[in-house]
Amino acid sequence: MLPAAEAPQVELVSRVSREGFRQAFRHYPAGVVVVTADAGRGPVGFTATSLSSLSLDPPLISFGIATGSSSWPHLRDATTAVVNFLGADQEPLARRFATSGIDRFAAPTSWHRLPGGEPALDGTSGRLTVRIEQLVTAGDHRLVLARVEEISLAHAPQPLLYHDGRYHPLPSAHTTTAERS
Amino acid sequence: MLPAAEAPQVELVSRVSREGFRQAFRHYPAGVVVVTADAGRGPVGFTATSLSSLSLDPPLISFGIATGSSSWPHLRDATTAVVNFLGADQEPLARRFATSGIDRFAAPTSWHRLPGGEPALDGTSGRLTVRIEQLVTAGDHRLVLARVEEISLAHAPQPLLYHDGRYHPLPSAHTTTAERS
Repeated sequence: MLPAAEAPQVELVSRVSREGFRQAFRHYPAGVVVVTADAGRGPVGFTATSLSSLSLDPPLISFGIATGSSSWPHLRDATTAVVNFLGADQEPLARRFATSGIDRFAAPTSWHRLPGGEPALDGTSGRLTVRIEQLVTAGDHRLVLARVEEISLAHAPQPLLYHDGRYHPLPSAHTTTAERS
Repeated sequence: MLPAAEAPQVELVSRVSREGFRQAFRHYPAGVVVVTADAGRGPVGFTATSLSSLSLDPPLISFGIATGSSSWPHLRDATTAVVNFLGADQEPLARRFATSGIDRFAAPTSWHRLPGGEPALDGTSGRLTVRIEQLVTAGDHRLVLARVEEISLAHAPQPLLYHDGRYHPLPSAHTTTAERS
């Protein structure tokens, strides 16, 4: 670590503007997933950068969804969902599932149904099938807590990264020395 | 997107082992923060890769904390906390605040108190001062929902990334064309 005298100075940006909040997270890198579900009224899905691994025992994850989004009424009524991990070459899919007013599941989107009926995207770097356990009210979003019931992974996945307002491919690394805390 | 016939195949890993769950998130990239707080019994802090921007209006964030961790009893009693965004050169700090049985705030850690008394790390790429609003039970963790009250950012921050069990520096990008959904 740099000694304090040489440390870069942080400056107060706001307490708190919308733009300041956006700016803070613009510089925070995140992975990219598409959450898909079907509450019986057809498949829905949306791009999310808020996925977190939450608990190992039991295996729980969380992600946010805007209550103003078209997917929300469907996800609210669904009991299960699929978290599709996007690969480095899937920026078009990330953009498609963040675009309003289109049929996100129409061609060129390639997808299939899992045995339980959930829609799952093809060509991803992996997916989690999850059971929705809790919806927590959080301002203009709901935080979804879900239990992982099944895990499918590609070999040597190369993830897509969201950072500084853009999508970036990340190469796969093959050495693993530390555990996520 | 690749046509389905050429798409990489995902394989069922587990339904659900601890190792399968770890493996799924090993390939999911995340930013790195140190959450610091002081409930009146001295400063505590821990490295987290679970920070999410949750709601814009009001500005809410979430992160997880293991209830078995030494920081948990302090964070549980705190009303405010600081989210310190780690910069590309701060891997030693990430490791230090993930190590048990040491005084994480002793030298070489450089830190200071904010006007409200909260401990804040020096040399970071930015920080959020937050008010803790809700603690959600989630297996072996609690999910902390907090409201952002103040934002301080460095110029052109270069974030630290956690991916595949390792920390990696990420260069700063300067063009911004898309909004996080």
